Amino acid sequence: MKAKVYVTLKKSIADPQGNAIGKALNKIGYDNVEDVRIGKLIETELGEVTKETAEKQLKEMCEKLLANTVIEQYSFEVLG
Amino acid sequence: MKAKVYVTLKKSIADPQGNAIGKALNKIGYDNVEDVRIGKLIETELGEVTKETAEKQLKEMCEKLLANTVIEQYSFEVLG
Repeated sequence: MKAKVYVTLKKSIADPQGNAIGKALNKIGYDNVEDVRIGKLIETELGEVTKETAEKQLKEMCEKLLANTVIEQYSFEVLG
Repeated sequence: MKAKVYVTLKKSIADPQGNAIGKALNKIGYDNVEDVRIGKLIETELGEVTKETAEKQLKEMCEKLLANTVIEQYSFEVLG
């Protein structure tokens, strides 16, 4: 059971890294690029579990370890 | 035009960060977790462009700046 977790900064949290990349893209000619936000993509293999178990585990793992829920939000996809 | 870019290490490249997170998850009870790989999620706004232009720009931006194509691979989604 493959899964993908997406961890991003909450909208209210400034993203200086994203800003820097946005400016760099503007500088090399992509003036239309705005509001760049950087997050984490975590891919993993969960072995022989049901979709429900996978989703339960992913939520727990995000809350406990993968995301800092004070400043980050998360979402995930179970790919089967 | 919103877009998401996913940048991950090529399969042939070791991912010590992913390994460390995988071991940490095993330690807190998720023994079924294997092969954790960490990548970047880049979200951005591309303004008033066509889907074709957005896809062309995203490919160029990945090749030029967002991905180190020696060790990384990329994919992207134009969300409209």
